[in-house]
Amino acid sequence: MRWPGVLTAYKEFLPVTEKTPLITLLEGNTPLIPAGRLSRELGLRLYFKYEGLNPTGSFKDRGMVMAVAKALESGSRAIMCASTGNTSASAAAYAAHCGLKCSVLIPEGHIALGKLAQALFYGAQVIAIQGNFDAALALVRKITSEHPITLVNSLNPHRIEGQKTAAFEVCDALGEAPDYLAIPVGNAGNITAYWKGFKEYKVAGRSRKLPRMIGFQAEGAAPIVKGQIIPNPQTVATAIRIGNPASWRPAVEAARESGGFIDSVTDEEILAAQRLLATAEGIFAEPASAASLAGVIKYVQKGLFKPEDVIVCVLTGNGLKDPDIAIRQAGQPLSLPPDEEAVLEVVL
Amino acid sequence: MRWPGVLTAYKEFLPVTEKTPLITLLEGNTPLIPAGRLSRELGLRLYFKYEGLNPTGSFKDRGMVMAVAKALESGSRAIMCASTGNTSASAAAYAAHCGLKCSVLIPEGHIALGKLAQALFYGAQVIAIQGNFDAALALVRKITSEHPITLVNSLNPHRIEGQKTAAFEVCDALGEAPDYLAIPVGNAGNITAYWKGFKEYKVAGRSRKLPRMIGFQAEGAAPIVKGQIIPNPQTVATAIRIGNPASWRPAVEAARESGGFIDSVTDEEILAAQRLLATAEGIFAEPASAASLAGVIKYVQKGLFKPEDVIVCVLTGNGLKDPDIAIRQAGQPLSLPPDEEAVLEVVL
Repeated sequence: MRWPGVLTAYKEFLPVTEKTPLITLLEGNTPLIPAGRLSRELGLRLYFKYEGLNPTGSFKDRGMVMAVAKALESGSRAIMCASTGNTSASAAAYAAHCGLKCSVLIPEGHIALGKLAQALFYGAQVIAIQGNFDAALALVRKITSEHPITLVNSLNPHRIEGQKTAAFEVCDALGEAPDYLAIPVGNAGNITAYWKGFKEYKVAGRSRKLPRMIGFQAEGAAPIVKGQIIPNPQTVATAIRIGNPASWRPAVEAARESGGFIDSVTDEEILAAQRLLATAEGIFAEPASAASLAGVIKYVQKGLFKPEDVIVCVLTGNGLKDPDIAIRQAGQPLSLPPDEEAVLEVVL
Repeated sequence: MRWPGVLTAYKEFLPVTEKTPLITLLEGNTPLIPAGRLSRELGLRLYFKYEGLNPTGSFKDRGMVMAVAKALESGSRAIMCASTGNTSASAAAYAAHCGLKCSVLIPEGHIALGKLAQALFYGAQVIAIQGNFDAALALVRKITSEHPITLVNSLNPHRIEGQKTAAFEVCDALGEAPDYLAIPVGNAGNITAYWKGFKEYKVAGRSRKLPRMIGFQAEGAAPIVKGQIIPNPQTVATAIRIGNPASWRPAVEAARESGGFIDSVTDEEILAAQRLLATAEGIFAEPASAASLAGVIKYVQKGLFKPEDVIVCVLTGNGLKDPDIAIRQAGQPLSLPPDEEAVLEVVL
């Protein structure tokens, strides 16, 4: 069957009414790539849910298509969000697709080039606020509560509804839920959404079991792990650089209920995992994405998994979103004259 | 059905034997997005085949998976190519996925940041040759003909075989071939591959008609249109900056046989179409991709199409491959203090 986008494909699980416009950029239906070399090396049955192949390059499109559809349904003519990057790109794209006005508030500085380029290029009004993410979000909340503009940050409950469709797809592809779902944790909406999705699919009889949810924050931005708000979070993984997650409580609940946990990984572990994904599997994911693999490697070393365990690592975004980090890690090309001997020397 | 990648999905149309390893990064199965606003504005039934959602962000993955599978089948341990960008990224990714060594020769300078970052990051040996694309290619041909290394440039005939699967998908999604297939033309392998695919699908009874193939080169890199090799091709669309296309003759043949043509569009038209794709449809494609839409707009103005014509524009690569061009066109964000009044002034 031709893929119709998440709103149509999973209609019965979503807040879709007869009045909801079934808009789509054909988001979702992303590949669940079986790891070859890493499965053998780590002694696991490992899969990557590569969300970087959504229309704007991240998992955010799943929730955004739902949020924008509901904004249209309610008669809204504009949407607004505060975002470190991926959310803004997604909001801008769906607003463009539907002819809505879109405003994006971002914290000044530290935004990955590709992500910023996206929101601007899709035609959103991007406003850099002299302050951090939380200040930008507070302003968005205030403005959208007082004016006829729909907030599409993860505080918008429709976002989680759309995002949970990734869990459905994992079950559909495997024929069953995995044993473990490893996932990066930033604003914590995604771990919340996946857990909701897995539970709903089981209730509906589409899967028989539930995975353990294992979430990974970056060490310098690990408020949930440390049990306290981080006023000035620091990590190379910009997409999960969040000091006060919007979905803090449901994320902790997802880990607890599922028999999983939320832990942290260092920036070094994240960058090493990002590079390993590329060189061992041929998958280029943004740094935040690699927190899931970094976490799995950490717990392989602790002996958590059995060889028969099926483990799905969620890769939340495309590596092309952050080319600078890739270039910094990968070094420069060799420069040579167009001479056979010179080239052969380094090639063979 | 779960998508198995192009080698498995279209096995009977490909040079797949019992000994061919069915490797995959789950390439293909890319969205055919119905244009909403642009269809209405242009008075057409317009679709975009968004090849930017392949694993490395371009259509090259279709041909590369075939070429690398055949390299493995033949016992090769290394692959090599000369590439302005997208081919190198794809070769590097599949080599990493399969544990092959990969060498990439690129012309020094003028390479889009994201594309260069990719090949390097996937772990390929990237060598910048002091010379243009043709000099790099000549060197690759010489080396691969003399040493046990497989050439995976478009001269490798398996590349075209894999690439033609995009035509199959277009037919499968529409239930029939379109009336027109608009496509960027650089090295001219892709227009050749699509035409081959459409013909084979018709012969196999999977479609009843054939589209007219309309190809578009960039004005400063239009050897086919001008009927002569361009020694120093110039265009903002790096992916189609080719002065002496490898598939020159079959591309001309495809246009002639199908009742179509190959024409050129200016860099200004390409950049305007790229921006329009983003702001009117929410699709971010690399500049070269937009040559197809630019061409369609040019021929709408000439009155070529009938309102009932189904036109598919091939968007060959992801806009994230070339963030610099996007930023240059889109301008910078506004910088404001975290103050409600200041923000409201520009948002409402």
